[in-house]
Amino acid sequence: MKLAPACACGIDVHAHVVPERFPPYLGRGTPSPWPETAPAPDANGLCHRHVLVGGKHYRTVSEKCWSAPRRLADFGAMGLAHQVLSPMPELLSYWLALADAQGLIRFLNEQTAAICADSGGRLLGLAAVPLQDVDVAIAELRHAVEALGLVGVELGSNVNGRPLGDPHFEPFFAACVALDVPVFVHALKPAGMDRLVGPAALQQVLAYPTDVGLAAASVITGGLLLRQPTLRIAFSHGGGTLAMLLPRLQQGWQVFPALAGSIEQAPREQARRMFFDTLVFDAPTLRHLVDSFGATQLMLGTDHPFNFHERQPVGRLAEAGFDTTTRDALAFGNARRFLGRRSAAAWQETA
Amino acid sequence: MKLAPACACGIDVHAHVVPERFPPYLGRGTPSPWPETAPAPDANGLCHRHVLVGGKHYRTVSEKCWSAPRRLADFGAMGLAHQVLSPMPELLSYWLALADAQGLIRFLNEQTAAICADSGGRLLGLAAVPLQDVDVAIAELRHAVEALGLVGVELGSNVNGRPLGDPHFEPFFAACVALDVPVFVHALKPAGMDRLVGPAALQQVLAYPTDVGLAAASVITGGLLLRQPTLRIAFSHGGGTLAMLLPRLQQGWQVFPALAGSIEQAPREQARRMFFDTLVFDAPTLRHLVDSFGATQLMLGTDHPFNFHERQPVGRLAEAGFDTTTRDALAFGNARRFLGRRSAAAWQETA
Repeated sequence: MKLAPACACGIDVHAHVVPERFPPYLGRGTPSPWPETAPAPDANGLCHRHVLVGGKHYRTVSEKCWSAPRRLADFGAMGLAHQVLSPMPELLSYWLALADAQGLIRFLNEQTAAICADSGGRLLGLAAVPLQDVDVAIAELRHAVEALGLVGVELGSNVNGRPLGDPHFEPFFAACVALDVPVFVHALKPAGMDRLVGPAALQQVLAYPTDVGLAAASVITGGLLLRQPTLRIAFSHGGGTLAMLLPRLQQGWQVFPALAGSIEQAPREQARRMFFDTLVFDAPTLRHLVDSFGATQLMLGTDHPFNFHERQPVGRLAEAGFDTTTRDALAFGNARRFLGRRSAAAWQETA
Repeated sequence: MKLAPACACGIDVHAHVVPERFPPYLGRGTPSPWPETAPAPDANGLCHRHVLVGGKHYRTVSEKCWSAPRRLADFGAMGLAHQVLSPMPELLSYWLALADAQGLIRFLNEQTAAICADSGGRLLGLAAVPLQDVDVAIAELRHAVEALGLVGVELGSNVNGRPLGDPHFEPFFAACVALDVPVFVHALKPAGMDRLVGPAALQQVLAYPTDVGLAAASVITGGLLLRQPTLRIAFSHGGGTLAMLLPRLQQGWQVFPALAGSIEQAPREQARRMFFDTLVFDAPTLRHLVDSFGATQLMLGTDHPFNFHERQPVGRLAEAGFDTTTRDALAFGNARRFLGRRSAAAWQETA
């Protein structure tokens, strides 16, 4: 399959799902910040709903978030054949009491499975897991993959402040390897919030890529991929700030005995074992990511259908001037490798 | 003056000074973390001293930190004609009681002036200021420039957690404009420390560039350069993570009404009004910085004489394959523009 300008063959690994409604809180603990939705004015011919978290307005989203047909209507213009849906990260619920998080996450995973089932094979889903408890998270992942047919897992860039590269999470990653599912890491409750000057949107704009970059760096300095060499792990927003951290980490590894002693493979080499999405909104930066991480490690990402999304993910590849091999790898080839066998049926159905 | 491989004409704007000894604490408050030094084993034919802060070992440094002849002996191999010295940032003392900070900072500024005076015009100095009090900081800057002959000021990337783009600091920057002195922003007590997995050196390696990137972004989102259009401000470590944050900030500015309403000039354009050093240890990344910020905005930076320093700052320009005009601009032309008239005599003496 060759990528032509009019070809809609892209696989977007960074797109989000939000349920139209949430169950009311039924637990007995302190539920805050439990999510709910409320009617919002329609716009552009689309039904919209407000998402409230803990009773406060968080975001207003359109029915593309929960309607497969509405979402698929954008695919032609975006050059997409498939999307891999993950829950809006603020729903990941690491901060809820475990029993509350389990209930909400099971509901989320069922909703994600439902929109995928309604898509004729175009949509694939990633599970949420209650990673505040590693064992429970493993059990939920197994259920989501084996019973619900989800094809991988979305994790936040930190779990209540603990970075993903912390050895505490190793059993979870080992379970991902055992289940042969890929991991997509998305920014969440980021570091650096007290360094921002300006509107609340700067959390998404500046602190999100900051936290993703630090999460990816923690996976390198923690050596996760050396102990789990077959783990497939991807980072959102082009790896955030990692591309700027990596040369300094490489040099530091060569200079500081403590780093040389604790990091067993060159940071640059470890980075080239990770995957990243292309969501950087800029062709020169995208070229720099390919130089930094390798043409085999990048996959389309859009943040669709939120307002702040990449409208021309395949067009951006053309703008960057990649050769056909690189363009096809970024458009769909690398994503197929990242997603693996649990998604393979989708490519055959829609080939 | 043309840059040839054997020509030592570079101006390094990122190099540090540490006094050989500190005065004992003479105040009456709680002095911690007051600095001191203690003898350390000599190595490589150089005298070394331990730097302790608040009684704890912070770093071991060589006499290049306080001896002009020892420092200048490295210039030929590094391709340098001049260095602009700033205090080791952990000495900036924003966290001390004001009176304590004033005493320590006055001592630092006198020490910086002394090593410069001993250098035959090769070394220029940046002042420290007690920015926990903006008015006192302005008074110290005036003294350091007018009485001690320092040519600019070094600031931390945040002041006790408050980012430099906060309007609180505006009167200080206005004073820099009035005194016609450049500002060099260096990473300090960075955000993101709880996201690191590994040895303490990761503070310098990963969290420093993170904090510098957020500081530079705060100057953009706070609009400082729109209100102080003649301010000359530079950021250490290639601007840290800013190059990865900037395309996303630009896109967010075009998408979020709150950002469009609060940021009055395109983030990309504002970034091209700032200066950055070249301290990224990687030629492709250096090329990406020139693409991102412009060939007129980058200046040599080394972190000399600390262990983790760039040994071939001019060689890195050659490795990056810049044309002669760009190479000369990065080696010395941009630094002369950044430093301005208070440094001009140095270029004439050593032309």
